Amino acid sequence: MSNKIPVGVLGATGAVGQKFVTLLEGHPWFELTELAASDRSSGKSFSEATTWRQYKPIPEWLRARTVKACEPNLDCKVVFSGLDSSVAGEIEESFARAGYIVLTNSKNHRMDDDVPLLIPEVNPEHLGLIKAQRNRRGWSGAIVTNPNCSVIGLVMALAPIHRAFGIKRVIVATMQALSGAGYPGPSAIDMLGNVIPYIGGNEEEKVETEPLKIMGALEGDHVRFANLLISVHTNRVFVEDGHLECVSVELEKKAKPDDIARVLESFRSLPQELKLPSAPENPVIVTGERDRPQPRFDRDAGNGMSAVVGRIRECPVFDIRFVVLSHNTIRGAAGASILNAELMKSQGYF
Amino acid sequence: MSNKIPVGVLGATGAVGQKFVTLLEGHPWFELTELAASDRSSGKSFSEATTWRQYKPIPEWLRARTVKACEPNLDCKVVFSGLDSSVAGEIEESFARAGYIVLTNSKNHRMDDDVPLLIPEVNPEHLGLIKAQRNRRGWSGAIVTNPNCSVIGLVMALAPIHRAFGIKRVIVATMQALSGAGYPGPSAIDMLGNVIPYIGGNEEEKVETEPLKIMGALEGDHVRFANLLISVHTNRVFVEDGHLECVSVELEKKAKPDDIARVLESFRSLPQELKLPSAPENPVIVTGERDRPQPRFDRDAGNGMSAVVGRIRECPVFDIRFVVLSHNTIRGAAGASILNAELMKSQGYF
Amino acid sequence: MSNKIPVGVLGATGAVGQKFVTLLEGHPWFELTELAASDRSSGKSFSEATTWRQYKPIPEWLRARTVKACEPNLDCKVVFSGLDSSVAGEIEESFARAGYIVLTNSKNHRMDDDVPLLIPEVNPEHLGLIKAQRNRRGWSGAIVTNPNCSVIGLVMALAPIHRAFGIKRVIVATMQALSGAGYPGPSAIDMLGNVIPYIGGNEEEKVETEPLKIMGALEGDHVRFANLLISVHTNRVFVEDGHLECVSVELEKKAKPDDIARVLESFRSLPQELKLPSAPENPVIVTGERDRPQPRFDRDAGNGMSAVVGRIRECPVFDIRFVVLSHNTIRGAAGASILNAELMKSQGYF
Amino acid sequence: MSNKIPVGVLGATGAVGQKFVTLLEGHPWFELTELAASDRSSGKSFSEATTWRQYKPIPEWLRARTVKACEPNLDCKVVFSGLDSSVAGEIEESFARAGYIVLTNSKNHRMDDDVPLLIPEVNPEHLGLIKAQRNRRGWSGAIVTNPNCSVIGLVMALAPIHRAFGIKRVIVATMQALSGAGYPGPSAIDMLGNVIPYIGGNEEEKVETEPLKIMGALEGDHVRFANLLISVHTNRVFVEDGHLECVSVELEKKAKPDDIARVLESFRSLPQELKLPSAPENPVIVTGERDRPQPRFDRDAGNGMSAVVGRIRECPVFDIRFVVLSHNTIRGAAGASILNAELMKSQGYF
Repeated sequence: MSNKIPVGVLGATGAVGQKFVTLLEGHPWFELTELAASDRSSGKSFSEATTWRQYKPIPEWLRARTVKACEPNLDCKVVFSGLDSSVAGEIEESFARAGYIVLTNSKNHRMDDDVPLLIPEVNPEHLGLIKAQRNRRGWSGAIVTNPNCSVIGLVMALAPIHRAFGIKRVIVATMQALSGAGYPGPSAIDMLGNVIPYIGGNEEEKVETEPLKIMGALEGDHVRFANLLISVHTNRVFVEDGHLECVSVELEKKAKPDDIARVLESFRSLPQELKLPSAPENPVIVTGERDRPQPRFDRDAGNGMSAVVGRIRECPVFDIRFVVLSHNTIRGAAGASILNAELMKSQGYF
Repeated sequence: MSNKIPVGVLGATGAVGQKFVTLLEGHPWFELTELAASDRSSGKSFSEATTWRQYKPIPEWLRARTVKACEPNLDCKVVFSGLDSSVAGEIEESFARAGYIVLTNSKNHRMDDDVPLLIPEVNPEHLGLIKAQRNRRGWSGAIVTNPNCSVIGLVMALAPIHRAFGIKRVIVATMQALSGAGYPGPSAIDMLGNVIPYIGGNEEEKVETEPLKIMGALEGDHVRFANLLISVHTNRVFVEDGHLECVSVELEKKAKPDDIARVLESFRSLPQELKLPSAPENPVIVTGERDRPQPRFDRDAGNGMSAVVGRIRECPVFDIRFVVLSHNTIRGAAGASILNAELMKSQGYF
Repeated sequence: MSNKIPVGVLGATGAVGQKFVTLLEGHPWFELTELAASDRSSGKSFSEATTWRQYKPIPEWLRARTVKACEPNLDCKVVFSGLDSSVAGEIEESFARAGYIVLTNSKNHRMDDDVPLLIPEVNPEHLGLIKAQRNRRGWSGAIVTNPNCSVIGLVMALAPIHRAFGIKRVIVATMQALSGAGYPGPSAIDMLGNVIPYIGGNEEEKVETEPLKIMGALEGDHVRFANLLISVHTNRVFVEDGHLECVSVELEKKAKPDDIARVLESFRSLPQELKLPSAPENPVIVTGERDRPQPRFDRDAGNGMSAVVGRIRECPVFDIRFVVLSHNTIRGAAGASILNAELMKSQGYF
Repeated sequence: MSNKIPVGVLGATGAVGQKFVTLLEGHPWFELTELAASDRSSGKSFSEATTWRQYKPIPEWLRARTVKACEPNLDCKVVFSGLDSSVAGEIEESFARAGYIVLTNSKNHRMDDDVPLLIPEVNPEHLGLIKAQRNRRGWSGAIVTNPNCSVIGLVMALAPIHRAFGIKRVIVATMQALSGAGYPGPSAIDMLGNVIPYIGGNEEEKVETEPLKIMGALEGDHVRFANLLISVHTNRVFVEDGHLECVSVELEKKAKPDDIARVLESFRSLPQELKLPSAPENPVIVTGERDRPQPRFDRDAGNGMSAVVGRIRECPVFDIRFVVLSHNTIRGAAGASILNAELMKSQGYF
């Protein structure tokens, strides 16, 4: 019998849920034992309930598995949530209240004072908020969130720079992949030979605020937000996976492109020290090729868990500018929550 | 017999040349009488020499027309140049020396002190440089240039704002169409589901410097450059025509999005007063739809001669941000030079 | 006051409805006076009720026009129907019963014994079915249908060949545009770098049967179907407009590619004789370029009303093979019904 | 020291060559020791000489390896050729003459009487031609070819049907991926929202003739071609990898779709018996999903070595029709030659 930790997926039939299922297959620490989804799906077999859109087929042994309702009576203590934000809030709370550790990709609780918004390489110490969360809410479980898919790659690049040189202001323009819009997402006839310079759901506001919490300092029961300003333009482009971002940065201390490259290339953190199973060897990969990173060729770097930074150069307006790419459904969603879980396990939370 | 002004096209068989041919067909003032191109093409019939890629067929009466060499013995006094920059420099000079007015899309002479870099709505007075150009170079003709395809839309939006409120700094990220790379341009397999965050030929440098000349002040025999800073990220996206740009602007005087919209919507200039044939009614069209402008749906506004601005909103880092779109092969290339010619004619240069 | 014939559009807010609105704007014979759509839209202004996806803007004078319900109390005697087939059947009958001439793109009545399935160049005499239709159903109005969007181009190419040489068997593979699936149609992430070898709604069956009726002979109150066999493979490709079809044909009488080209090029019919406003000069255009027709470059031939045939060559299995392209939302939908109406008017039906 | 068989790649820097390099990395029987390419590349390091376009990076240990000239002095006895057909003919002969076994993807020798045109699952016995080849040409080595990229998937589906029921006639329409055109291949602006109904290099003729040799019978020193007729329409679509083909088949003996499915699903051959390393478990995979196979989702079946057949249904004109997909750069090119080599080794040719 396996001595892996049994885990469940909430919203298992959706796009993020499918990615959780795919990434958990063969995981060295976790064993996927429970699939839960909306009432429309519960009671059906998984293969029947889901419109599978992953390249790898549904793991054979899960095809006939019955999808359960999203109620806190699952036979596991850890759940990954790919629930839609319209329902995630209450369901995730009900699980945390019932003692489950909830690792969620949904936005609902990201900005709550007592909820960690976690990138294990950047702010692992924010797990300390769980104590306050449990005290305040009387929960035996906990909710831990990962950031918006455009935020993760951005912050993985900004955080080491911020530590080394201090960041005052950032202006970003994103070119985001179709998969970031969920399934089915934008229609083909709208996207053919086109760019849509707008992403709904307050995407720009998220990318402007979440990084301040992530790069903030844990002070007892809350986080003091980092003191920098971010402005974001978001765009949807005809790309399958991989969010590309053009970033201009004003620094506190002057730095040359080579300094920035060195800081990013040498960036290692707790997940690398702990050799967490999903942690990439290099959280940030710096490419010197003049026309990279490109979504199709670079998004899978570090099994989709690395951010790739290129075109680091001086900025005539601010100090430094560059391009960063990260895989929006791996590092930017399901892979992020799994790495969060790995960190929590290694820190004794399970 | 037509009393239109006879004109020629240099580089008539190329992508920009074909656009000149298409836009000049039926022009009320100009009659295309001369087609010239490289030695490889000269001597052939036009239909034989060109790989026609326009949606409208080759004008019937031009199909059998013989393509001439790019030598200043064409039977006209005005030539439009779509020559590749590798050869444009000398050829254009030879024509100007021989008394031709050369309206060129090539970059070679754009930044020369005594050459107008013209957007008729923005800096029509820069035609005054022609006097210095002729004096200094001993030419009876002249060279007049239009800006880079990414510069025109940007400056059409920035110039009215600069006049009304003063601009200090600008950060731009472009998403540029395939046609901007000439024909054949990037390969399909490179662009499939991809974005290339780099455009060769010093594209970023052009977009950072040309606007300073265009928005500068004519002072006798030269232009005093405008005193503002621009930083640009350029990207190639899978779009046929239409360059989209995300723009963040720091102002001298504070202004609200509504103020900016008003200034842009009400912007009219000399080409509109003179009712030049190719001048759009509104040089800048402001859209209030939250997800526009989009390349495929908005690039043809004003017959491809208007810039379309949308998503004007406050910028948390600078003051104002917006998105601007313009048609890169019409307003950004051939249409630009034709409008330049119309302005020159109306000012008595022909 | 206009002495044009007032017409209405049923389903005016949908994809086909919008195309009717666009094509009727400025029509020399018809004046669009009535817009009708589902209950969800009726009562709203047109600009409010429709998500406009055409390149030309909504005609200004129609923006504020109130959308009515699809009930036979519209102030006109001729209606064009772009209704979805789920509701078209009954609504169209109610209009015909109430005395309206209904020109419809919906499939519901296409194969009814007493309903013309019309391509004016191919079977104008099938309008004779209207007499039987009125007798049998006791209607004062009538229903006239146009074929499926993949059928029209195919039959425009096959019919002249059938008349000249006799066709026994045909095997077809289609590559159909996104717009054929209505709006929003397939999702971008499904179509990215992909082909879907299936089109729902019994598409293949339609393309195999409708041509037999269209090319059949009117015999009193019904049509004797043409005696040939068609087999179709349908595919959805990443193209905006224009259905491309690879066609192999077995003939009764042997013919060479040149014979076929001659028959197709010289094909003219009643709409050309009558100079109907929407009739293309050449119903079929034959291209000799080895890699044409291509959807993006050839779909607008004859204002989208011509079929373009290329690559006519011998078939090692049958006799002849070729490629045919036609614009699926113009000749294949709204333009087809408008040409049907023009034919009916010229024949005294209005 | 490795006791793997040392092998070389001719044309290692090109698109097919890179695929050979990628697929040979980690091969259990073969060790890539020699890289050779044109004079333009020879003498350079591999990483310098090649514009690498594979998703996996260049194997680290090959980056600095010097590219040699394509001359028969390589330190191995087996070479894979991805040479362009403009030079492949003579070079491959020079290697065979010098005693090398040449496994080539180039078309030059495919139809030679004494050269095997091999699909190991279909005609492994055609290796018997090598004896005649050596006798006739006085070579100690040999040339063995794999078919055109559109032929392999087609024949993998047709051959089992032909054996079971006899095939008389076949009509095919292909939708071929961009990678089939080599690098850079078609331009993005030509392919945007487009299909090109033509593929150069006599593609249709190849698909009509190669299968007759492959499915033919070895008779001593030559192959008696199979007695069936094939007609092909080829098209280029905006797909990265994976050729999709719509196939209609006339049979000798009647068969139902279920019979065909059974024959294809149960098809196994020598490579499966021998458990050759690159042999897929199922040469042909039959899918019952109504809209599959699709290039993006199914091309990697069997590690890109299986053909996927779907939509098997009756044909109103012939007997049976279906869709088949195969990966054009794996099973259709480099993978094919590697499997050929595995078969030869197992048969004692090395």
